[in-house]
Amino acid sequence: MSERRPSVAALSAPLVEALVADAEILRLGVSRSPCGARIIDGGIAARGGIEAGRRIAEICLGGLGRVGIATSGRFPRWGTMITVTTLDPVTACLGSQYAGWSLAEGDFFALGSGPGRALWAREKLYEELGYRDSADHAALVLEVDRTPPDSLVARIAEECGISADRLTLILTPTSSLAGTVQIVARVLEVALHKTHALHFPLDRVVDGIGSSPLPPPAPDFVAAMGRTNDATLYGGDVQLFVTGPENEARDLAEGLPSSSSRDHGRTFAEIFTAYKGDFYAMDPMLFSPARVTVTALETGRSFTFGAFHDEILERSFA
Amino acid sequence: MSERRPSVAALSAPLVEALVADAEILRLGVSRSPCGARIIDGGIAARGGIEAGRRIAEICLGGLGRVGIATSGRFPRWGTMITVTTLDPVTACLGSQYAGWSLAEGDFFALGSGPGRALWAREKLYEELGYRDSADHAALVLEVDRTPPDSLVARIAEECGISADRLTLILTPTSSLAGTVQIVARVLEVALHKTHALHFPLDRVVDGIGSSPLPPPAPDFVAAMGRTNDATLYGGDVQLFVTGPENEARDLAEGLPSSSSRDHGRTFAEIFTAYKGDFYAMDPMLFSPARVTVTALETGRSFTFGAFHDEILERSFA
Amino acid sequence: MSERRPSVAALSAPLVEALVADAEILRLGVSRSPCGARIIDGGIAARGGIEAGRRIAEICLGGLGRVGIATSGRFPRWGTMITVTTLDPVTACLGSQYAGWSLAEGDFFALGSGPGRALWAREKLYEELGYRDSADHAALVLEVDRTPPDSLVARIAEECGISADRLTLILTPTSSLAGTVQIVARVLEVALHKTHALHFPLDRVVDGIGSSPLPPPAPDFVAAMGRTNDATLYGGDVQLFVTGPENEARDLAEGLPSSSSRDHGRTFAEIFTAYKGDFYAMDPMLFSPARVTVTALETGRSFTFGAFHDEILERSFA
Repeated sequence: MSERRPSVAALSAPLVEALVADAEILRLGVSRSPCGARIIDGGIAARGGIEAGRRIAEICLGGLGRVGIATSGRFPRWGTMITVTTLDPVTACLGSQYAGWSLAEGDFFALGSGPGRALWAREKLYEELGYRDSADHAALVLEVDRTPPDSLVARIAEECGISADRLTLILTPTSSLAGTVQIVARVLEVALHKTHALHFPLDRVVDGIGSSPLPPPAPDFVAAMGRTNDATLYGGDVQLFVTGPENEARDLAEGLPSSSSRDHGRTFAEIFTAYKGDFYAMDPMLFSPARVTVTALETGRSFTFGAFHDEILERSFA
Repeated sequence: MSERRPSVAALSAPLVEALVADAEILRLGVSRSPCGARIIDGGIAARGGIEAGRRIAEICLGGLGRVGIATSGRFPRWGTMITVTTLDPVTACLGSQYAGWSLAEGDFFALGSGPGRALWAREKLYEELGYRDSADHAALVLEVDRTPPDSLVARIAEECGISADRLTLILTPTSSLAGTVQIVARVLEVALHKTHALHFPLDRVVDGIGSSPLPPPAPDFVAAMGRTNDATLYGGDVQLFVTGPENEARDLAEGLPSSSSRDHGRTFAEIFTAYKGDFYAMDPMLFSPARVTVTALETGRSFTFGAFHDEILERSFA
Repeated sequence: MSERRPSVAALSAPLVEALVADAEILRLGVSRSPCGARIIDGGIAARGGIEAGRRIAEICLGGLGRVGIATSGRFPRWGTMITVTTLDPVTACLGSQYAGWSLAEGDFFALGSGPGRALWAREKLYEELGYRDSADHAALVLEVDRTPPDSLVARIAEECGISADRLTLILTPTSSLAGTVQIVARVLEVALHKTHALHFPLDRVVDGIGSSPLPPPAPDFVAAMGRTNDATLYGGDVQLFVTGPENEARDLAEGLPSSSSRDHGRTFAEIFTAYKGDFYAMDPMLFSPARVTVTALETGRSFTFGAFHDEILERSFA
């Protein structure tokens, strides 16, 4: 891409400050960790909610995305749809939103997502994106149900090259409403990540739109993880607009949907159980939207593969 | 609820001022009553419109809600859907939006709704909500087709404990476009009010989403009232997320939809006529969305009762 | 209309400045022409994108409209829908958005649309609207794939009565993503323009809502023009709310949809080819939404004519 890349830290900073300013009305908790980092509780002790999740999702997209909630007739019972558009899909979704930073200490483990990742930028993905951000502040979203150990918090700030008091961690449990919304708002990111896994050059993805039904949260972690995944796997819809040869757009469309995986056809929880809870035994190529349309801008042809599976959504969500 | 409650007066004040600033382009009238209150004409002599109604609805939600307009395929002929989300459903819908303040003087009668109610806060509901607002300014929405007598306007200000020049009354006739929008944007509030009538504890309602088709306005008051009610009764969809035992969530879901009422199955106007125009003979339990899903957050199970009735909408709207 | 008309130049100016400020993240080019006018490249050398197109569409509506993007189940394969609402439909769509200013010099030809038209205001339509804007700055949208000759740019400024450095030209090729979005966002304008062509008095149109599926762009100009037209002709939906006699509302509803045209039933490209590429041989009455509902506010009755044609959309888009 010839364009200069935007700073996801700078673009998301006003959204982070607005989240903090509205924390009380959004029913979020705000505190400082011992090392001084700002911790936003999106659903651990705090209630949070759908609108909080929507705003956290826009932060996670690095200020480069819009997340809308509207009613649709696509799935008869689950009418609330999340629609994601971006100003720059690859930077928003892979440069910021993707949960690619492994954060572990003792028995604590989380995947960090959001704009702070681009300051650290040690994932191999950043080399391929040719992108790295620079700022004196950072925000990260962690899909966890407890506060990280403070030594880890301090280390995150250090690895971002900022002082701890300039770090904001937004914690959204998988089982919370805010967590559910911010996870399903990853439907476009999931498609772009698989696009990358299929070795399609990311600089040829000009734009994209994604949508997904909003699943009800589940208190059980596996069920919650299952539903948010199933929303994408069996209800997610993504359209990508790409440059380059038409046959490569067609191949991408064929390879992208979840139906291209050997594990397709069962709910996430069913597959997880079949693999005896070994997440890494699951086919990584499963994680993609139910239906994908790829438009080859060079010829204007569109290729659609995959399909929605209302009955699997019903089994997973109800 | 453990959270401190927001001030619906403070949160909605910038929206009220923006409405006044944009009054000309929104085709609203703005004047001062003899006692000094600001009167916004949303469709009496002024044209108003759909977008004016959308913004008035967000004011009515006390600045705690988002009202969106988008196209859906759910109802073949009536494709424009209103979707309502909130930052805090009980405070937004019952603490502000519900039309619970009886305002009568001589032959003038109106039900006041919106943030100003929380300053007066003499409805029994406020005790149960444990909520009361405090501010030196107030805004109320009145679904009327004429300006209230000025002595009543002055009394409203007095009962809110503010000076009359700090009171804004927004008047939206039932037959106007703005009125139609702001009424159907009550679909979530109607569900919460019935939740309360069914004695379900409101502090267990964590979140909710509502949608409703936009009916065409009718010049006849009964027809207009009928259509805006039918939009909810036969086309409204609400999902609530509640804490507590699963069986209570199930019972709530079964009790909530309009189909649980003996009067269900006819248009509002047909029922009204059958009861010879005696509104209070109608089953109060009729007033609820066509379909309701209640998700028990404790177990993650969802219960859906009720159904959409496209043919009744067609009879009512056309 | 008794209301004073808003200034579309003033209302859209903040949107134009925000577009320029965000140009890098929206992947737009910004430059100055030799005579000093600001040229925004929405998809010639710049990538642009869907969100850029959405914002350009709101500028084109003179700051009086909202353009939303959300997922719908109406068309199984083409799920992304554009919904257009306005604060004042006639001023927004005909006073600003309509592409009514013929701009020609040498072999360059473009139709200018957007708020700048109202400064020039020499189209016959402005007389009938009784509208003319006054400002010292102007923005125009041109659906072109190259920069206009600078002498033409200078002449545009002169005809608007402003200095060239206060003129902004936004260039969106028909084949670009931004262009596609801003064209299909004209679905309501197309209905209002045909309303005018059918001699229905525009001051009787109180409000309107339009929606259209988002077609994939096509690199070939005729195909691209075809798809953006077909989106409206076979997928567009408009509801108008009008004053006056019910039978005139009914006649308007019957006359408006594309199905009232002799050329209806084939894709734009098929018709264009059948007429050997002579655009002016095509029935001008074809250019209108697939389905139109007109609500007579005087009686509350609604009249719906026309229908969606999914199979024609499929032929055109795929």
